[in-house]
Amino acid sequence: MAKNTTKVADRKRLTELEDLGSGAAFADQVFSLVGHSLFFAEFDHDDVKVLAAYLRVYHAQPGQTIIREGDMGDYMLLVIRGEVDIYKQNLMGDRQLMTSVTQGVTLGEMSMIDGEPRFATCVAQKETTFGVLTRDDMVKIILEKPSLGSKILIKLVTMLSQRLRHTSATLLQYMGNQ
Amino acid sequence: MAKNTTKVADRKRLTELEDLGSGAAFADQVFSLVGHSLFFAEFDHDDVKVLAAYLRVYHAQPGQTIIREGDMGDYMLLVIRGEVDIYKQNLMGDRQLMTSVTQGVTLGEMSMIDGEPRFATCVAQKETTFGVLTRDDMVKIILEKPSLGSKILIKLVTMLSQRLRHTSATLLQYMGNQ
Repeated sequence: MAKNTTKVADRKRLTELEDLGSGAAFADQVFSLVGHSLFFAEFDHDDVKVLAAYLRVYHAQPGQTIIREGDMGDYMLLVIRGEVDIYKQNLMGDRQLMTSVTQGVTLGEMSMIDGEPRFATCVAQKETTFGVLTRDDMVKIILEKPSLGSKILIKLVTMLSQRLRHTSATLLQYMGNQ
Repeated sequence: MAKNTTKVADRKRLTELEDLGSGAAFADQVFSLVGHSLFFAEFDHDDVKVLAAYLRVYHAQPGQTIIREGDMGDYMLLVIRGEVDIYKQNLMGDRQLMTSVTQGVTLGEMSMIDGEPRFATCVAQKETTFGVLTRDDMVKIILEKPSLGSKILIKLVTMLSQRLRHTSATLLQYMGNQ
């Protein structure tokens, strides 16, 4: 029950942002990210065109919250233009800036995949345009375009694997220092 | 060049273990893991039968090293029977036991995916039977059996996502304690 309420909150956040419609109209802009984006390495023009049609594109003003830590989430974001700050709450409840990301970066994949609460808060730092890929649309891609679906899944697996290596190595350093 | 040498070492390690042949003969044993294994949740009998045929099964004696930290690796393991200890070298070069895993658990997925060096050492703690899935065979599954390929990729993405959440949360606790 609580899950539903917070899931609604996560989706509702999008309705507060400017809806720019289907990503189909942004295919060229998304394609320009290829070569500058880890996510799109090895994607060709057709892949991007098909994927873009499954995206819905939004625009956020500086300071607008796109994702809030703790909300239930079922979509990932692709930053098409602009800059997004990533915050995490510390044990005192204070918001700490973890990093900032720009175009070509994907966010929120973990919740898209496992449906667990959002791990961090994302706030537009500049005027930001981003595409949204929901879990339902990811499933549709896998069923309707299995080859592209596998390509996206392989990309997600690779990115998560690299982040896990990096995070585990950092954790071991901290553990060694205790 | 060094990469090749260590990759050979990783593969050579398998040749030192007892080769039990194709996983096809182990399909029923692998299917008995469904329900006891995070990896196999939602796999039906046909999925397991197809996947098993892509595995090669090995047997390790207690104390035999299956994977060594730092070696280049391109396969993952599925523990079918037995127990495996996972070790990680600390900054002093000493081997520390991180955890032990039993049947149904997969190991070495990160290197299968990204081809980077093995993150930890795996040693058979008891008589252990395990299946090996190489990256080449994973690619074959994706091409030849796209539906099963997607199922495996979704499972890998989910498992990595959950580990990343867990590791990140632990890291944040350590960082908060500095």
